[in-house]
Amino acid sequence: MRAVVAREGRLICEEIAEPKPGPGQVLVKTLSCGICGSDLHALHHFDRMVDNARRSGGGMGAAFDPKAGMVFGHEFSAEVLDYGPGGPARLKPGTRVVSMPILIGAAGPVAVGYSNDYPGGFAERMVLSDALLLEVPNGLSDRQAAMTEPFAVGAHAVAKAALDEDAAFLVIGCGPVGLAVIASLKARGFGPVAAADYSPARRAMAERMGADLIIDPAQESPHTRWTEMGVAATGAEQMMARMTGAAVKRAVIFECVGVPGILQTLIEACPPGSQIIVAGVCMQADQIEPAMAITKQLDFRFVLGYTPEEFAGTLGDIAEGRIDVAPVITSAVGLDGVAGAFAALADPEAQVKIVVEPAR
Amino acid sequence: MRAVVAREGRLICEEIAEPKPGPGQVLVKTLSCGICGSDLHALHHFDRMVDNARRSGGGMGAAFDPKAGMVFGHEFSAEVLDYGPGGPARLKPGTRVVSMPILIGAAGPVAVGYSNDYPGGFAERMVLSDALLLEVPNGLSDRQAAMTEPFAVGAHAVAKAALDEDAAFLVIGCGPVGLAVIASLKARGFGPVAAADYSPARRAMAERMGADLIIDPAQESPHTRWTEMGVAATGAEQMMARMTGAAVKRAVIFECVGVPGILQTLIEACPPGSQIIVAGVCMQADQIEPAMAITKQLDFRFVLGYTPEEFAGTLGDIAEGRIDVAPVITSAVGLDGVAGAFAALADPEAQVKIVVEPAR
Repeated sequence: MRAVVAREGRLICEEIAEPKPGPGQVLVKTLSCGICGSDLHALHHFDRMVDNARRSGGGMGAAFDPKAGMVFGHEFSAEVLDYGPGGPARLKPGTRVVSMPILIGAAGPVAVGYSNDYPGGFAERMVLSDALLLEVPNGLSDRQAAMTEPFAVGAHAVAKAALDEDAAFLVIGCGPVGLAVIASLKARGFGPVAAADYSPARRAMAERMGADLIIDPAQESPHTRWTEMGVAATGAEQMMARMTGAAVKRAVIFECVGVPGILQTLIEACPPGSQIIVAGVCMQADQIEPAMAITKQLDFRFVLGYTPEEFAGTLGDIAEGRIDVAPVITSAVGLDGVAGAFAALADPEAQVKIVVEPAR
Repeated sequence: MRAVVAREGRLICEEIAEPKPGPGQVLVKTLSCGICGSDLHALHHFDRMVDNARRSGGGMGAAFDPKAGMVFGHEFSAEVLDYGPGGPARLKPGTRVVSMPILIGAAGPVAVGYSNDYPGGFAERMVLSDALLLEVPNGLSDRQAAMTEPFAVGAHAVAKAALDEDAAFLVIGCGPVGLAVIASLKARGFGPVAAADYSPARRAMAERMGADLIIDPAQESPHTRWTEMGVAATGAEQMMARMTGAAVKRAVIFECVGVPGILQTLIEACPPGSQIIVAGVCMQADQIEPAMAITKQLDFRFVLGYTPEEFAGTLGDIAEGRIDVAPVITSAVGLDGVAGAFAALADPEAQVKIVVEPAR
């Protein structure tokens, strides 16, 4: 079958062996599969991802061979084709499905899209685990269904925030993760939500996702806008609010950029007592000033992925119209367009999410 | 009156002006006042504390003049002597009291013990705010009552931990803050509590405070002991527990050391999903690897101080015997012994908490 193989920094469209479903596994035809920022990173810095996974104590990431080829793609919708040995699966051939990108293999769980042994969604066919398949409901399009995975990342980040207090939100960085956070907050009725990004196109997208306040950080610090969102932005303002009993909101910040320096910038500029959900993956070492974080009593929650419940809940949010994913899908390519799409994603003005559709 | 003035890195016992209580203020005689690690730091690195306070957005710390002298001491018990203008205060002369070290002055709140304008507890007399005074109950000794402040720091750190799940605890560093955390956890019935410190004397003190498991980090990593405390210590163990439905505890770690490098050491070694309460104040810049914190989904809560409720609750814990502070008070000195006591506190084998008693 045809697939896009990532090998030593290059993406090559070539013929690879047909995947064979084992017991409890299902052969599927890939319908639509988003390109993730992690794929862009993995193409050139796979060694860093492997090193991080190893030193984080194993798990699925630790067994990679970066020199061997692999087929990326973990944001997919697919159609059931056939079953592995051991009898029929739950869902009939022809059923359209999504799945968390985890395959329960003979040797344990495998990350679909980051494996030397199993292809991800940038291939005509994949094998998935029957137990993890979710049927695509309500006639959602293939592309919309493929957005379940990236939007589940936003749902997880929001679920990790402590939302028991009255809160106001700031999303820093309106790439796919930031947009998914905005959509998830608004789907749950939380707000106000401010969104900041240097890119005009990304800011426009944040507005379409429902952000209440759009900030161009080249024009003003996002932290100048807390007062109008009901947050006491300084220690002095917070002390005054406590003394007068005035109701103030807690600042909850989603860091969705992931570059060195951004954590310290937040530590210096955010209101005291802020909760900072760190969803942007910074792969380099970074410097912070702990004493300042202590003085401001900041709360950092580093988040990754999602739970099975959050994944299924996100599919429901999309299917029932609580989240409109259509705007973020800015382009679609066939397998021979993947290398070009990776290059195109470098420009935030032009693209947000490009989906790969092997049948094109 | 006599006081110990800190000026340009030196502690000098000298005569200073008598403090005068303003409206709502009370003149008190200092009975006993602990020396805090922050005092040791402030003596030589006051510029850093001022810089941190300024860049953290003001508050009480921002208005210091490091060149002018000041009288440290913010862990005190005292006796009411006289009232400021405007009539009698709530408590009669002779009443023994403690107070949060905040003075509500004409120009706003002042940090007692870190002020150019008002002396702290290393002086014969202080002025305090009537509204913040708490009467010392149950015949607690002057020294025991003076421990309310440092033990409130531990109570606050514990209150900031998310204790809604079944948890096991590790306290890194058994100086006064770590010991107060152990005491507060045990007073509330939480456990098991492991405690790690390189100093044999500090480890012995941790055991007296009720720690269940005592670890010498020179002999073994504290993180080798999670399994016996019921925590799944690796991603693989956690995945297995989820699949089998086995009950596992969440790791909650109190960082009570505050030196560069310790956060990254924790990020690398702690169980995935750990909650890390950062109570040790690291005044230097520090380096972390955010990607590893993300992979392990760590939760960092930087904490400082305490609330009025936590302060009052700690006085109650001490007065009603839930926390025994006596073991940590290893020495007492008069005002002329303060400089020597600061030097003696460099040796963790010899001293934990030295109290200053101006009447000695």
